[in-house]
Amino acid sequence: MELLDGQLASRAIKDALAIQVAQLKTEGKKVPHLAAVLVGNNGASETYVGAKVKACAEIGYKSTLLRLESDISENRLLNIIEELNDDPDVDGILVQLPLPKHISDEKVINAIHPSKDVDGFHPENVGRMVQGLPTFVPATPYGIMLLLEHYKIDTRGKHAIVVGRSNIVGRPMSILLSGNTNPGNCTVTICHSHTHNLKELCLQGDIIVAALGKPEFVTASMVKKGAVIIDVGITRVPDASKKSGFALKGDVNFKEVAPLASYITPVPGGVGPMTIAALMKNTFRACKERNDS
Amino acid sequence: MELLDGQLASRAIKDALAIQVAQLKTEGKKVPHLAAVLVGNNGASETYVGAKVKACAEIGYKSTLLRLESDISENRLLNIIEELNDDPDVDGILVQLPLPKHISDEKVINAIHPSKDVDGFHPENVGRMVQGLPTFVPATPYGIMLLLEHYKIDTRGKHAIVVGRSNIVGRPMSILLSGNTNPGNCTVTICHSHTHNLKELCLQGDIIVAALGKPEFVTASMVKKGAVIIDVGITRVPDASKKSGFALKGDVNFKEVAPLASYITPVPGGVGPMTIAALMKNTFRACKERNDS
Repeated sequence: MELLDGQLASRAIKDALAIQVAQLKTEGKKVPHLAAVLVGNNGASETYVGAKVKACAEIGYKSTLLRLESDISENRLLNIIEELNDDPDVDGILVQLPLPKHISDEKVINAIHPSKDVDGFHPENVGRMVQGLPTFVPATPYGIMLLLEHYKIDTRGKHAIVVGRSNIVGRPMSILLSGNTNPGNCTVTICHSHTHNLKELCLQGDIIVAALGKPEFVTASMVKKGAVIIDVGITRVPDASKKSGFALKGDVNFKEVAPLASYITPVPGGVGPMTIAALMKNTFRACKERNDS
Repeated sequence: MELLDGQLASRAIKDALAIQVAQLKTEGKKVPHLAAVLVGNNGASETYVGAKVKACAEIGYKSTLLRLESDISENRLLNIIEELNDDPDVDGILVQLPLPKHISDEKVINAIHPSKDVDGFHPENVGRMVQGLPTFVPATPYGIMLLLEHYKIDTRGKHAIVVGRSNIVGRPMSILLSGNTNPGNCTVTICHSHTHNLKELCLQGDIIVAALGKPEFVTASMVKKGAVIIDVGITRVPDASKKSGFALKGDVNFKEVAPLASYITPVPGGVGPMTIAALMKNTFRACKERNDS
């Protein structure tokens, strides 16, 4: 079993980006600028946004964090997005989800200009991804593709089982893995809450992507020997033995499954850091396109 | 075995639309207007466009067929699209593919305003479909969903095997069948040219959608007893016994497979007519949204 080390792979990607940023500076060009919008003060959201802002600093990107009150009106938030769209210095806009219930995620995401939508959630970018056109691919699935690429995992013709059909992970993952790309060209089965025979399907998987958000759901009895296991889950589970009061659990029972797997991502330290590396790559791309245009 | 009769189901859909059009007329409202653009004179394209224009006439839609020379420049074609976008009388714009090689399909499709893109090929509409938002769903997969609905096929939790990953059929089909809708909620496996064990996978299928464009590819040995068979293929095969010189063949060996199937589409007369009914539904929707806005 080999660990798919997201820390290591994301480090390599961020180092390569840092060199490119230094090059931009040498050329007297604008460096990438990510604007992150955080509404309210959800603990997990704080952590995620913090990690993104930190990654910007490490690589040499400019970042702006807009902290907004949880009772901000939808209209006011839309106006702020509009200002960021119009700001020529901002390359990428990221709105940390979830938003408070009185604000429509859809309206806010669709308000971000597609050319600054580094999270890849705007329908136009999603459609371009489906059609195999250059676009911003959502950070988590893109990060997983980069991880497979980093470890030179042979995916062509392999049967990938994607568990979960969310718009931010399972759905795009199934599209990317089945695309005519490398990594890619998998036969993909997409499973969800209505799937009857999940165990039997998972046992067919040369690759399993677990993205259903149920801690330790995938057990040894569901995994074929030699499978590649990608664990997207990251759930806070109460744990009195931890200073924080919680432990982070993936969707895979790592202890049971790891001995069977050829490759497996740890949680934390697997998909999480890759998501950030992917966001950084998207932000660089947004900046490059603005610099070139 | 029951035939999934696309003639019958599309007739029902078109009849319902005709009543709604009559209602629009009674209310003094504008009726749907489809503008079809045909470049060059490909035989199959002529047939398809002809059938669409005919369907408009049957239902009471207005239609305009623009016949353009095969050597028209890309720019000129883009200008024509722009004029149709700006024409308040036109609700839906359809450009019959394939276009001549010197014209970019992508550029032309992306030039159609998403609100008039009744073929559902614009990235924004594709993205909305992926996200489960109201949109124009591409006519062939939409037609198949309407056919499943018409025959009240129970799809929830069923395992659908989609053979082919094209942007116009296989890919959207896999997305729609796995969506949280009815019909839908299938576990979906998407297969393509890199799939190794296609026969074994097809044998698992409660539903098989064959959309690979290889005449009579799916044989009895690939089909489980009781499966629902959707045949999207329609290839012209030379046949001296026919007046036209060719016969139309589906991707399924109908004679062999029909006895095994619970439901099966014939070719012709299955998916083909449903594609046109779906296009008519999309055009009505485009008109309704323009009437209401």
